Amino acid sequence: MQRFALLGAGFIGSVHAANLAAHPGIDFALVYDVDPARAAAVAARHGARPAASLDEVFDPRSIDAVLIASSTDTHSEHLRRAADAGIAAFVEKPIDLDLAAARETVDHVVRSGIPAMVDFNRRFDRDHAELRRLVTEGVVGGVELVQLTSRGPASPPLDYVRVSGGQLRDQTVHFFDLARWITGEDPVEVYVAGSALADPRIDQFGDVDTSIATLRLPGGALVQIDSVRRTGYGYDERIEVMGATGLVESRRQRSGNVVRYGGAEATGDGLHAGWFERVQPTYAAALGAFVKALDEGTAPPVTLEDGLRAQAVAEAATRSLRSGRAEHVEYAASLDALAR
Amino acid sequence: MQRFALLGAGFIGSVHAANLAAHPGIDFALVYDVDPARAAAVAARHGARPAASLDEVFDPRSIDAVLIASSTDTHSEHLRRAADAGIAAFVEKPIDLDLAAARETVDHVVRSGIPAMVDFNRRFDRDHAELRRLVTEGVVGGVELVQLTSRGPASPPLDYVRVSGGQLRDQTVHFFDLARWITGEDPVEVYVAGSALADPRIDQFGDVDTSIATLRLPGGALVQIDSVRRTGYGYDERIEVMGATGLVESRRQRSGNVVRYGGAEATGDGLHAGWFERVQPTYAAALGAFVKALDEGTAPPVTLEDGLRAQAVAEAATRSLRSGRAEHVEYAASLDALAR
Amino acid sequence: MQRFALLGAGFIGSVHAANLAAHPGIDFALVYDVDPARAAAVAARHGARPAASLDEVFDPRSIDAVLIASSTDTHSEHLRRAADAGIAAFVEKPIDLDLAAARETVDHVVRSGIPAMVDFNRRFDRDHAELRRLVTEGVVGGVELVQLTSRGPASPPLDYVRVSGGQLRDQTVHFFDLARWITGEDPVEVYVAGSALADPRIDQFGDVDTSIATLRLPGGALVQIDSVRRTGYGYDERIEVMGATGLVESRRQRSGNVVRYGGAEATGDGLHAGWFERVQPTYAAALGAFVKALDEGTAPPVTLEDGLRAQAVAEAATRSLRSGRAEHVEYAASLDALAR
Amino acid sequence: MQRFALLGAGFIGSVHAANLAAHPGIDFALVYDVDPARAAAVAARHGARPAASLDEVFDPRSIDAVLIASSTDTHSEHLRRAADAGIAAFVEKPIDLDLAAARETVDHVVRSGIPAMVDFNRRFDRDHAELRRLVTEGVVGGVELVQLTSRGPASPPLDYVRVSGGQLRDQTVHFFDLARWITGEDPVEVYVAGSALADPRIDQFGDVDTSIATLRLPGGALVQIDSVRRTGYGYDERIEVMGATGLVESRRQRSGNVVRYGGAEATGDGLHAGWFERVQPTYAAALGAFVKALDEGTAPPVTLEDGLRAQAVAEAATRSLRSGRAEHVEYAASLDALAR
Repeated sequence: MQRFALLGAGFIGSVHAANLAAHPGIDFALVYDVDPARAAAVAARHGARPAASLDEVFDPRSIDAVLIASSTDTHSEHLRRAADAGIAAFVEKPIDLDLAAARETVDHVVRSGIPAMVDFNRRFDRDHAELRRLVTEGVVGGVELVQLTSRGPASPPLDYVRVSGGQLRDQTVHFFDLARWITGEDPVEVYVAGSALADPRIDQFGDVDTSIATLRLPGGALVQIDSVRRTGYGYDERIEVMGATGLVESRRQRSGNVVRYGGAEATGDGLHAGWFERVQPTYAAALGAFVKALDEGTAPPVTLEDGLRAQAVAEAATRSLRSGRAEHVEYAASLDALAR
Repeated sequence: MQRFALLGAGFIGSVHAANLAAHPGIDFALVYDVDPARAAAVAARHGARPAASLDEVFDPRSIDAVLIASSTDTHSEHLRRAADAGIAAFVEKPIDLDLAAARETVDHVVRSGIPAMVDFNRRFDRDHAELRRLVTEGVVGGVELVQLTSRGPASPPLDYVRVSGGQLRDQTVHFFDLARWITGEDPVEVYVAGSALADPRIDQFGDVDTSIATLRLPGGALVQIDSVRRTGYGYDERIEVMGATGLVESRRQRSGNVVRYGGAEATGDGLHAGWFERVQPTYAAALGAFVKALDEGTAPPVTLEDGLRAQAVAEAATRSLRSGRAEHVEYAASLDALAR
Repeated sequence: MQRFALLGAGFIGSVHAANLAAHPGIDFALVYDVDPARAAAVAARHGARPAASLDEVFDPRSIDAVLIASSTDTHSEHLRRAADAGIAAFVEKPIDLDLAAARETVDHVVRSGIPAMVDFNRRFDRDHAELRRLVTEGVVGGVELVQLTSRGPASPPLDYVRVSGGQLRDQTVHFFDLARWITGEDPVEVYVAGSALADPRIDQFGDVDTSIATLRLPGGALVQIDSVRRTGYGYDERIEVMGATGLVESRRQRSGNVVRYGGAEATGDGLHAGWFERVQPTYAAALGAFVKALDEGTAPPVTLEDGLRAQAVAEAATRSLRSGRAEHVEYAASLDALAR
Repeated sequence: MQRFALLGAGFIGSVHAANLAAHPGIDFALVYDVDPARAAAVAARHGARPAASLDEVFDPRSIDAVLIASSTDTHSEHLRRAADAGIAAFVEKPIDLDLAAARETVDHVVRSGIPAMVDFNRRFDRDHAELRRLVTEGVVGGVELVQLTSRGPASPPLDYVRVSGGQLRDQTVHFFDLARWITGEDPVEVYVAGSALADPRIDQFGDVDTSIATLRLPGGALVQIDSVRRTGYGYDERIEVMGATGLVESRRQRSGNVVRYGGAEATGDGLHAGWFERVQPTYAAALGAFVKALDEGTAPPVTLEDGLRAQAVAEAATRSLRSGRAEHVEYAASLDALAR
């Protein structure tokens, strides 16, 4: 049994809490939140205890792993404390909105040797994982063209947009990661065109809500990612990978399988109303993979370095949004750090 | 070049006329109709000549084949004249609404040795033919359960219903034929339940417009055919064949590939508005297969005997509709005739 | 909180145990099984206690409801004890393989006034329920033709087949219920053709594994149900309802949304491997509906009478399998009983 | 009856010849080709006459319209002769590979006042046209994001690539036109990333066979077009248009509607083997629209100016391929010309 403490009891913390409680190999021990009442409520719902302090959380005698779902600006600090205490860490992205700071944190954690994993939960979508399996098995031949669609149903609140780092760092970063994961290659160059169409007020932060990113991989293959904050038809996520001999697609998912025919039309279930309806099972799957790695003493399937690299792509993408030209992706500093 | 005369210049005759004119291996020579003006109009449209008389049609010096698309009560007579003149014959179903009379005509024609084919055009539907190819290749293993759906968009006029022989002889007979063709077996028993729902007036003729037929094949496999005269959603035709190791389906066809997503729904092109939109290409394909057989001196792919056997199933089905029990299908007389 | 005791700790009992434990409005108190070790194991897994005796189970001071998932031959007895104790009952189908005995039990339970529900879990399939909602709202007009497909992936063991009552009472009965539920009508007549194709040994019990049932509803609408014990392509369940103005379909469900294109083919996820993968969520949904009715003091959404009526259709269907003719469905005795 | 002469009797000329012969409102009179034998053969097949000279073709006493399907380098000259003779012209794209020369030709033709149309046949695809109709009706709200996929099954021969003007001018130009047509807006900026993956030898011409273009429309909406010369799975063309309130899609088309289920997979008809199987009906539809405009004295639905504007986008796209940055699209000279 892995003894877990949860950091953060907001919406996403609550999702993790339910998964921590349901996992048969987890002893869900503690919940910490800056708001003690919120921690107490979540803990009570799942038979865990609220933590009196962070010292109680980062105590390796009673805790084996932390799940960091607190606000973004605390991720680095919590990761460092876990590393110093020798406690495994599962962390929501991003590690730090500042890439240089994130790199320093990752260096620190890697040197500590603790198992650590960033929660790129989209990798644990059943269909995306099956698509990657087929690509990796060579079913479509050498990859030449990849398309990813990431479209949410509703614009985030302005207050969230302001601190999010922008659409590319906040939303598209999951798909930069998927592109790396599916192709096994690190993009070398990225171009982005974007507009603020659904909520023009975000333009004041230099942000966009509708964007198309084009990535070039080392061997010349191309990746296209479209990101949309607000559709009028629900949550839309799909991937297709074209190789030299075929195409494989993880199709947009319908919310059901009912269709009615009348007159000249056929009408059926559309897409999921919200991102959570589609994505929910991936949180438990990602956590399960982390626990399995802890149990077996193997490396977690998503590393902090993966987090950094997707973030490096997002940085270059954000630069391109302003420069109007393709920008090189800079991974170097991080690699140097790892080589030290 | 096969020199063709067309008998009948009504709606279906006009369809055949266009196909006769377009086929590169056919010399479309003559058109005959009881209404000379109608014959002249169709002939003029396609560069053929109206025939002055039936004697001109059944003249083997100038005509190699007749396409019989005249009214049902003339089919037998035209077939016999073709047989006597040594002219090949392509005939719309049925050969004769009276099965015994049909058997005599077929015996006569078979003895003459002329190439003859009944126009079971559904066999020439691209998807149905592909389904049969897969079944015949054993892709689903031994056939165990077959489902066929035959649903038209509009009730026929009462005047047509009165002389049609009833839904089972008029509409379902095509699917009795498909069942035989796909499975390679002759049904031994048939049960039918039916109702007059769309147009209750047809009840006065003992007819139905909504029916379900269940057929038993010699080896125990079962076939289900639902037939509907009037849907509210266009023309609906589909087949599925389940065997011991899999299922193959010729799906209901949409009229296009456009779909729109909005709110919680996805709406797209429905089925074809009418039977002709779906079935049109099969007429040319059936005719093409007949001409190919003439050119190569091989047997036409659908025989008059096929027409008789499908009709024998329709007879038993019509008896079952009244008796409320499964009825044996009687093919015997016809087989005797062939064995003479 | 409704205090539940579970009767039966076999496979399906274990499924119910997990749902009892996860439901926030249920206090999962007791587990009883003829094998005390099995009861203890299931109880331990979910924080319940094994019951020392049936007396402990049927004690209204500590138990509000029983979930009867024990062997079929105990259902009647458990239902009667629940009725006598004033404890609500949720029971797996059938109430009793002998229809007359089942009727007596239902009469007894109805007179007691306890809330009781039979677990026709297919009604709680999300897609089937949506289909029924649309039909009930009149989206397709008056119902004219219904098709239901019930196909499992594997023949049951011979030992199970022997005591199952036959395919129609064991498997198809769920779909007789769905037909009643969707149309709101009681079938008046049923014809069945069947064969033993997948496992010919079941013929010794007079049983079949491949069958087609045709039902007639009072207003003339027709229902067709095909039931298959063993497919070569997974678990296949679908429904379509045609009305005067349209069609609504609960489509066969794929196990995923991945498709690959290569050469001239497109290959994707097929159906679910087993019935449980498809049906699992419906058990929790059915239980939830029962608890909701208990909490609100309303009638459970599926009554024991529903169980009887579906069983009455199965009886007539079984008679038809032998007689080769359409058989009338006899509901009368039960109605008399209710009227007493 | 419009009297037509066909210029060019190669592959695409032959396609047009069949459509000219089949159109009831066309008198297909003449065929001209630099190879007189080729002209004679095509003319004979369709009851037309080979033209002895270009003078015979451009004679307004006997010819009302020319269909220019000769080699690209002759389009401008033939257009000018048609303009000078007062004969209507239907021309394959491009007008001239040199944009400035094309502009001069268009100015010349426009001043002449003859009806002229460029053959952007993809506009006449049934599904694309239906998609545009829905977009134009406002079904998805204001357009925000458009995706177009253009993927052929086979790399063209090197000799063709050399003179084609490159993938963007030769292949993608059809989709630049579709983007303009669907949105009703002229792109202001374009970025392209491309690679030579299927046939690296084309790199010597500075050409690519796999590319992603990103276009910005005046209001900020974005368009993405991926173009591929060689897939391993047939001909793939699809469009989706996302607006503020919904999405509409013209889906990739399957070559049939057959699917088989076996084991855990479902396998069905893939895409069309070649571009011609998919695109064939659009040639007749485009020609039909041109003839209708001639008959009714209205403007043809695709103008030469449309040809120029799509070509202007292709020019900017080709510049971007080399510069690595977004390039402005220059339409100005042409507009000036029109304003003179």
